[in-house]
Amino acid sequence: MDEMITLAHGNGGRRMRALIEEIFAPALGRPDTQADAAAIALPEGEIMVTTDGFTVQPARFPGGNIGALSVHGVVNDLAVSGATPLYLTLAALIEEGTSVALLRELVASLGEAAHEAGVRVVAGDTKVLPRGQGGGVYFTLTGIGVRTPGCPPGLSAIRPGDRLLVSGPVGDHGIAVMLAREDFGLRGDVRSDAACVLPLTRALLPLRGLRFMRDPTRGGLATVAHEIALATGLGIELEEANIPVRESTQAVCAILGYDPLYLACEGRVVAVLAPEEADAALTAWQALPGGAEAAIIGCIGATPGPVVLRTPIGGSRVLPELEEDALPRIC
Amino acid sequence: MDEMITLAHGNGGRRMRALIEEIFAPALGRPDTQADAAAIALPEGEIMVTTDGFTVQPARFPGGNIGALSVHGVVNDLAVSGATPLYLTLAALIEEGTSVALLRELVASLGEAAHEAGVRVVAGDTKVLPRGQGGGVYFTLTGIGVRTPGCPPGLSAIRPGDRLLVSGPVGDHGIAVMLAREDFGLRGDVRSDAACVLPLTRALLPLRGLRFMRDPTRGGLATVAHEIALATGLGIELEEANIPVRESTQAVCAILGYDPLYLACEGRVVAVLAPEEADAALTAWQALPGGAEAAIIGCIGATPGPVVLRTPIGGSRVLPELEEDALPRIC
Repeated sequence: MDEMITLAHGNGGRRMRALIEEIFAPALGRPDTQADAAAIALPEGEIMVTTDGFTVQPARFPGGNIGALSVHGVVNDLAVSGATPLYLTLAALIEEGTSVALLRELVASLGEAAHEAGVRVVAGDTKVLPRGQGGGVYFTLTGIGVRTPGCPPGLSAIRPGDRLLVSGPVGDHGIAVMLAREDFGLRGDVRSDAACVLPLTRALLPLRGLRFMRDPTRGGLATVAHEIALATGLGIELEEANIPVRESTQAVCAILGYDPLYLACEGRVVAVLAPEEADAALTAWQALPGGAEAAIIGCIGATPGPVVLRTPIGGSRVLPELEEDALPRIC
Repeated sequence: MDEMITLAHGNGGRRMRALIEEIFAPALGRPDTQADAAAIALPEGEIMVTTDGFTVQPARFPGGNIGALSVHGVVNDLAVSGATPLYLTLAALIEEGTSVALLRELVASLGEAAHEAGVRVVAGDTKVLPRGQGGGVYFTLTGIGVRTPGCPPGLSAIRPGDRLLVSGPVGDHGIAVMLAREDFGLRGDVRSDAACVLPLTRALLPLRGLRFMRDPTRGGLATVAHEIALATGLGIELEEANIPVRESTQAVCAILGYDPLYLACEGRVVAVLAPEEADAALTAWQALPGGAEAAIIGCIGATPGPVVLRTPIGGSRVLPELEEDALPRIC
């Protein structure tokens, strides 16, 4: 195998075939790389589909890399919709000059994450972008899963007084990636939270008071709160003291002027539950390795209103919708 | 709406929501843009899945643009596998500085092509790439369809003596895109053949002698022949005089030193049929607007061997597997 990706690895010919057979196929459980389309079998249930492009830069960061992150991102979108993820497709856009060793590592990591999440990569595509028209490796994954219809019921089921929970500290992924870029001359001990959230979502699905779940990725926890407020037409109150944020992440945020509530997580879940089942949900999450630091962080208001953060000293401030802030290639 | 795509259009906040609601949602039949995953319903049959990344440059070329091309590419992969395409997902990687008017035009074209092919875009994602880390607009689409299992039977059903057909002239897409780049100071009257091939594939599915279909995209007709030879272990003979190539495409190929047999098509089908049904297939194709110039172009050999092109003057030459030739961003 060559050491660098060249344009010929994308031309449909011998080198592309070699790339697929030597790098992709072995790491992905040897899907049929000869077919135009893959046949899949699905169990009973409502079929759920999601897609996501991944562009995180650098490709490796503390706690993960773009390969595993891509799987987690798509699997998590299915998981919060209540689905069991079963199949993935993978389209790679690879920049000319990318190291084959790096690509091999990322694809291996992608394959491992898929295996751990119980999903199979069944179809793929690779394109090579000329130098300067790409950014290393971009992966786009599509996920297919199956769920019990109406479980969870979704945004329209949210009622005044419902509680918001988050499964763990927020903002770690955003800060870990920013530190890995070394743009700021800062070092910190922050690892991305990137992980598969299936154990967390599965733990809540049996609860009849479960309304809605979402993973707070781009735009972070505050953006999920805004999406809920927008969809329900109800205000939201968050208790700052209850929102878990790691000290190391908070410290970097303070230096750089970032608000961790707006930073991407890649292994957290926000859930909305009827008030009488919020404690049961919290207990279920705290019993899991990925949910030890889960917390009840706020509630849905009785009337239309903004997303408000109550501060520990008794004040409150409105959390605006994310506006100009641009953190490209964070996921 | 702003005039240019900025990094804030990819941050998960207000501008990204505006971009999705103003550009993508109206053009794509207003899918649910609030959900993490989309529920789809499928009729009886074998579920087929395919994915493809599109990077063609320039984004517009005679006969198409990257929006419509993306739909055709994915729909055609399902079509040649015998499936009826039903759903698409769309992930866009948009470079900072891309004109919003251009994006609007491309997404509108994508939506129209989807509508014409009878497929619905049910899930999407947008990411913005910093200037210099993208190339305008990249679309990755995943397609889901349903087919009658084993129809067509596939590569393993191909037998010695089977005939190869092509549905129309080859190489137009590759030449149209190259001319549109204006790299060579050439002008020509070549339009891309980019089109939905569903009418062509549907016309052959009732034929019991149908073995296999594929659309000759990257690497062209010669690469499909190689894929068949590789999978069957049998040689292939192509009759040069019978392979349709437009005069205008041939003329540009002659000047630039390209072989049209290796150039991408985006609206053609190569089919393999039992000899006794080759004429029926040809007649069926020639009755269709997209198949008027269809031809029987060769046959599967009785023994292992190379892919051979018989020339009109009675000679023959081996068509090698595509090697170094690099035509980046042709699809």
